[in-house]
Amino acid sequence: MKFSPLVDELIKSLQCLPGVGPRSAQRMTFQLLERDRVSGHKLGEALTKAMADVGHCNRCRTFTEEPLCPVCANPKRGESGQVCVVESPADVLAIETSGQYDGRYFVLMGHLSPLDGLGPDEIGLDKLEALIREEAPKELILATNPTVEGEATAQYIADMCKGRGVRVSRIAHGVPVGGELEYVDGTTLALSLSGRRDL
Amino acid sequence: MKFSPLVDELIKSLQCLPGVGPRSAQRMTFQLLERDRVSGHKLGEALTKAMADVGHCNRCRTFTEEPLCPVCANPKRGESGQVCVVESPADVLAIETSGQYDGRYFVLMGHLSPLDGLGPDEIGLDKLEALIREEAPKELILATNPTVEGEATAQYIADMCKGRGVRVSRIAHGVPVGGELEYVDGTTLALSLSGRRDL
Ligand SMILES: [Zn+2]
Ligand SMILES: [Zn+2]
Repeated sequence: MKFSPLVDELIKSLQCLPGVGPRSAQRMTFQLLERDRVSGHKLGEALTKAMADVGHCNRCRTFTEEPLCPVCANPKRGESGQVCVVESPADVLAIETSGQYDGRYFVLMGHLSPLDGLGPDEIGLDKLEALIREEAPKELILATNPTVEGEATAQYIADMCKGRGVRVSRIAHGVPVGGELEYVDGTTLALSLSGRRDL
Repeated sequence: MKFSPLVDELIKSLQCLPGVGPRSAQRMTFQLLERDRVSGHKLGEALTKAMADVGHCNRCRTFTEEPLCPVCANPKRGESGQVCVVESPADVLAIETSGQYDGRYFVLMGHLSPLDGLGPDEIGLDKLEALIREEAPKELILATNPTVEGEATAQYIADMCKGRGVRVSRIAHGVPVGGELEYVDGTTLALSLSGRRDL
């Protein structure tokens, strides 16, 4: 034991955060204890609440503590009849930030990856199929990452949609191949949306 | 609002941590929600408990939730009669890690900095004076940082101890072991020259 039990425990616990090693966990702990207990306490409460109460949107699967996320709960977002399929909630934010899209989303929370046990059901494709049946959207915009897995997932969804009377498009490769969607700037994303092709 | 309220709140709260901006806060939030809710929940509890219960050691002022920290509570650590004075709990850990010291500590939790309102009482020198009177340590090792403020603080403490029958020493400054001379700054080199010992 290097410090007292509660201090040690906090330093250890902080290392569950991506990019936080022993050294920065220690710096964070001292910073909070010395200078910012109010924020530290708030963060503790935010974590406890979020971990317990945040679930998935009943319609699009993104993170939310309500039955529907803000986008799905907004009737205006249903008017275009477009559903943009992305891999993660961070991708939703990236596309929202581009300001070029006013339809809805479907969040796979991953991509097809048989080796990791992620098949169609694990990424919610049963749910997506039901959504297509029930909502009869005009267009499905496939905005999975331009990686091998993302492309394979897009192709799988395109095949699944054949003969269902829904236009299926793929965002254009303005997005650099091998890059991750959430790190692409808004202009590139806007271009990549407007340059989408039918599949 | 970019996400649901609880998710937004967590992303915002994480930014109280040093070195964490909006982007990494978002990445941390999704990582915890997607893959590690148990750790996220544990971290929440560790934060809440630490912020509420961690105070200062009655003897050395370092962080602890007990009346005495582990070092002060260990009678063996009092045998040498040495008290090492440092600026922060992280410095205690650094010295402990060296494995070369088995005395006790006194943690200033800062250094003299009149412009920031940090005078002798704010860095616990009243407490250090009482400790010298009551414990009559053999030696005070001043291990404040080799900065202008750290040196001034060390000098102030040395003056304060005059005529009290306690040996006061300052840790040596010089070229770090394994370091290359040409990359060491001039001030360090000057200290390392003036502090030279005969061989
Ligand atoms: Zn939704
Ligand atoms: Zn102590």
